[in-house]
Amino acid sequence: MVMERLAKQLDFIVEVDKLKKVYRQNVVIGTQRQENDAEHSWHLALMALLLSEYARDKDLDLFRVVKMVLIHDLVEIDAGDTFCYDEAAHEDKEERELAAAERIFNLLPEDQAQEMWELWREFEEGKTPEARFANSLDRFQPLLLNHHTRAHTWTKPGVTREKVLQRNGLIAENAPALWEYAQKVIDQAWEEGYLRD
Amino acid sequence: MVMERLAKQLDFIVEVDKLKKVYRQNVVIGTQRQENDAEHSWHLALMALLLSEYARDKDLDLFRVVKMVLIHDLVEIDAGDTFCYDEAAHEDKEERELAAAERIFNLLPEDQAQEMWELWREFEEGKTPEARFANSLDRFQPLLLNHHTRAHTWTKPGVTREKVLQRNGLIAENAPALWEYAQKVIDQAWEEGYLRD
Repeated sequence: MVMERLAKQLDFIVEVDKLKKVYRQNVVIGTQRQENDAEHSWHLALMALLLSEYARDKDLDLFRVVKMVLIHDLVEIDAGDTFCYDEAAHEDKEERELAAAERIFNLLPEDQAQEMWELWREFEEGKTPEARFANSLDRFQPLLLNHHTRAHTWTKPGVTREKVLQRNGLIAENAPALWEYAQKVIDQAWEEGYLRD
Repeated sequence: MVMERLAKQLDFIVEVDKLKKVYRQNVVIGTQRQENDAEHSWHLALMALLLSEYARDKDLDLFRVVKMVLIHDLVEIDAGDTFCYDEAAHEDKEERELAAAERIFNLLPEDQAQEMWELWREFEEGKTPEARFANSLDRFQPLLLNHHTRAHTWTKPGVTREKVLQRNGLIAENAPALWEYAQKVIDQAWEEGYLRD
């Protein structure tokens, strides 16, 4: 019985190794190599530990934030990374990701599948203080990478200063001090001609 | 004042992006690409969430385990990954890693540098229930990858069945059900001729 439960858990743990092969738009600092979702999730988790003092909501369950960022991109194993400024790709994003969650989380024993579902849904809905802070970090981390990689993703087709400001507005609401910094980064990218109007 | 503190935190967060460029001996499943420390740390954190029921100590502070595995390899940014079966390289490992911890953690504001130091020292000493479980996961994860990559690291020079059993004995002490599984994996690798006597 223990071994049957463990077998399911290990199937899941082996399956999610694939997150290391889901590549994002950002590059790793100092390289031309795209960052993958596993690295990104690790970076977010560490940021959550270090930056929680800037969350607007002061009584966060920080462990819940960390859990959320660790699992928030697992659905991309099936659904792929959808570039945040690609509007066409967003049309069926929700449907693709729901099907992925269904398949991937259900590899786990029922109680843990349920926990993963709840964490993921909470992150996606972005309503709780924990989910809002987790989503803000998920915006802030690529911004930070852009700042150190000549605005790598901001020079791509379809990206404008207005869209970047709009997308990152979430940070303004949920972590004002991080937003103050983010604005400077965006302004600088614009002044240096990386970011178009 | 806030901005000065934040600047230090962001310096650290940008610095540790380098963990994505520290490559380990294991390969990512289904590829010939070596896994890096950031991906590995993410994988361990997720495993901690899912496998804590197998820890010998039942009242673990699981968040502490997660924090520990998220930061346990940061020193390798300077010290590099030391292959666990390379005895020569282990001679100056401690010295190299202490110097790395000194430099890297001290990028942070003092209180957070202190927290990182304590977590890392606790992991290295491996004495608390949390550190023992974290170290067991740090053994179990590469074993799991080996199981799915034709025993990739176990076919390297100097690795024998006896050494693998010895190194992973830590799992036996701290997570008996995981050890039961680990033994099967090691036996199978030996039967299939990947692992030498």
